[in-house]
Amino acid sequence: MDIKQYMKEVGQRARKASRAMAKADTAAKNKALSLIAAAIHRDADILRAANQKDLDAARASGLAPALLDRLTLSDKAITTMAEGLEQIVALPDPIGEISNMKYRPTGIQVGQMRVPLGVIGIIYEARPNVTVDAAGLCIKSGNATILRGGSEAIHCNQALAKIVSEGLAGAGLPADAVQIVETTDRAAVGELITMPEYVDVIVPRGGKGLIERLMKESKVPMIKHLDGICHVYIDSSADLKKAVDISFNAKCHRYGTCNTMETLLVARSIAPTVLPELAKLYATQEVELRADDEARAILQGYPHLTAVTEQDWSEEYLAPILAVKVVENMDEAIEHINNYSSQHTDSIVTEDYTRAMRFLREVDSASVMINASTRFADGFEYGLGAEIGISNDKLHARGPVGLDGLTSLKYVVFGHGEIRT
Amino acid sequence: MDIKQYMKEVGQRARKASRAMAKADTAAKNKALSLIAAAIHRDADILRAANQKDLDAARASGLAPALLDRLTLSDKAITTMAEGLEQIVALPDPIGEISNMKYRPTGIQVGQMRVPLGVIGIIYEARPNVTVDAAGLCIKSGNATILRGGSEAIHCNQALAKIVSEGLAGAGLPADAVQIVETTDRAAVGELITMPEYVDVIVPRGGKGLIERLMKESKVPMIKHLDGICHVYIDSSADLKKAVDISFNAKCHRYGTCNTMETLLVARSIAPTVLPELAKLYATQEVELRADDEARAILQGYPHLTAVTEQDWSEEYLAPILAVKVVENMDEAIEHINNYSSQHTDSIVTEDYTRAMRFLREVDSASVMINASTRFADGFEYGLGAEIGISNDKLHARGPVGLDGLTSLKYVVFGHGEIRT
Repeated sequence: MDIKQYMKEVGQRARKASRAMAKADTAAKNKALSLIAAAIHRDADILRAANQKDLDAARASGLAPALLDRLTLSDKAITTMAEGLEQIVALPDPIGEISNMKYRPTGIQVGQMRVPLGVIGIIYEARPNVTVDAAGLCIKSGNATILRGGSEAIHCNQALAKIVSEGLAGAGLPADAVQIVETTDRAAVGELITMPEYVDVIVPRGGKGLIERLMKESKVPMIKHLDGICHVYIDSSADLKKAVDISFNAKCHRYGTCNTMETLLVARSIAPTVLPELAKLYATQEVELRADDEARAILQGYPHLTAVTEQDWSEEYLAPILAVKVVENMDEAIEHINNYSSQHTDSIVTEDYTRAMRFLREVDSASVMINASTRFADGFEYGLGAEIGISNDKLHARGPVGLDGLTSLKYVVFGHGEIRT
Repeated sequence: MDIKQYMKEVGQRARKASRAMAKADTAAKNKALSLIAAAIHRDADILRAANQKDLDAARASGLAPALLDRLTLSDKAITTMAEGLEQIVALPDPIGEISNMKYRPTGIQVGQMRVPLGVIGIIYEARPNVTVDAAGLCIKSGNATILRGGSEAIHCNQALAKIVSEGLAGAGLPADAVQIVETTDRAAVGELITMPEYVDVIVPRGGKGLIERLMKESKVPMIKHLDGICHVYIDSSADLKKAVDISFNAKCHRYGTCNTMETLLVARSIAPTVLPELAKLYATQEVELRADDEARAILQGYPHLTAVTEQDWSEEYLAPILAVKVVENMDEAIEHINNYSSQHTDSIVTEDYTRAMRFLREVDSASVMINASTRFADGFEYGLGAEIGISNDKLHARGPVGLDGLTSLKYVVFGHGEIRT
């Protein structure tokens, strides 16, 4: 197989399909999504069998249990995939919306129309549900997409690809609007990220290693998520109950998510009050506290207490471990956050209005919160309806990326024969 | 001079200054802009003398007359620079604006706050006025900027840099918020576009050659403008007077601008009526018409008539030359435009509602117009107040880029102690 030629043909088909998708009406896009959802239920046995093939091969090659878990397509996962599509059907169609239409002194009327980006390349791990979620979001936003899932999921992805293509065709849309890369050769990724003539944006979903490789090699703009080093700062004027609830939830609700708190900053004046209360809760979950000298003095006797090092401030633990630092005041907290945060999500707990407003403005992260758990930073909680990922970038889309993040705004001008003089 | 080390220090200073600029209040930013405007008037003699030095050197090295013209800082140019800054003062401050604040069922309130991008690198030709325009837009939008102007303008740019730094300091803002690269060594550009740790976005303003080089080498996202191959399509139902006025204005108002029409498409049924009328006007400006067989048959006897070739459809003439094609209908026109347009600006002339709406939706360009001259596609005409450039890209900013294009939206969450369950 000539990978370069194969990917070029995939790209050309995607570009062609993207033009038809850009003008597809809402009813056709929704019909395709519903047909796909119905077929997922109908073909559940076929999907399970394909997934079994992938699982057998993955077990034989010794895939790690956590990855096997993500690869597994349970009955619940099948239902969730289909429900996810119906939720996308229920979302308003972003495409074609015209906003800010204003008359200019010359007589022309100028506004902006929301349009698809074109062709979106998505690179992700061996998680079959991502195949359906991503396809659904791209269809609804009028884009064509090229999906490159982890090679371990190839059989299941091929079965899903068939369902998706049939759904598109059944709604009168081009079957090529969603293509799944049919080869597990890694060279295909190298091609996908260097075809700006066929691919408008790459959305990578995967580990830091993958993202860093893509950042080096990609010639196509990316909407990417690197890591989540999130902070909670407990201000001197914090409400004690809110501080404890939020800091416990932000760390312990789930350890493996990117919006989990990794570093806790506490104002000096409140540290002796709040840290012992928090320690009682963290102890129930055996959370290791990596604390600075001052915090360790307060936390003396906590069973999982260690000394923090400079590296800890830049660590995404994804585990029951928390770095703890005592700071003089909010200025020191903001300074620490702007130095070490991955600009994902940072939260302040305070009852002080002026400091709350300053924190909101001065912390340079995709999500900045007052008196709320960092765990709220996701597309569903924000009301986007669905998300394709979370962006750490500043350009184009920042934070959780929903349907709008897969679109662009073009200027539209309504004239009456005006010329420029 | 160690260029790598020098640019690194420039980058570090810019990053530091960007934090202070992000929280600067509107009054301070406006004060800096007004101080700079006043100093430009006050130091006009110094600026003229510095410009004279640049002009002498440029003449001695044989710079082309058109480039000498752009390099020249006339009295009018000095006044215009200062007025431009006062216009930016009058624009609303985009930073800190909060929009779409909504309560979620969990109790949190979620919205978006407009924030600066951070550090913006601007690479441009030897045009001193761009130095001031770009500095003004970056100051108002709360960004730090690194300016790399054409080396021929180095003395004038240094004089302007002094004025800008003093203005910033006079308003209590960091003088490093606007830095002008002090070396004419081209290696500095290579460094600027490969320091993503210090530079958030590059705005190149220059010829196609420069942009293509930057696209190959840049590791920093770009807001870029490549070329302007703009179309007017005269539909079968066009109003004759509008068609003639718009097609003449779009070509002949100015030849050298990116929003000038380069290809005229005419529906077959109206071509015998409209082309002879248009030819009368084009003849007064000696416009060369490069026409297909059908159009040539209609235009027989026109004094500057030649046969169009395939290459012409992709040509940005920037000259009194126009490619002309007769098409069967709007579908063929849209097909041609989506194949050959540079996705800058395309316009339809029609009285047919349904076709007007379809053209608006289906043409994939940054500006799509109905019954208006393509020449309207710029930031001032669109009411943006000012523009840093025009973007052919789809991500982030598309079309004329004003203050908002130099900003990003972060999510803000107002909570009351909410945790995720």
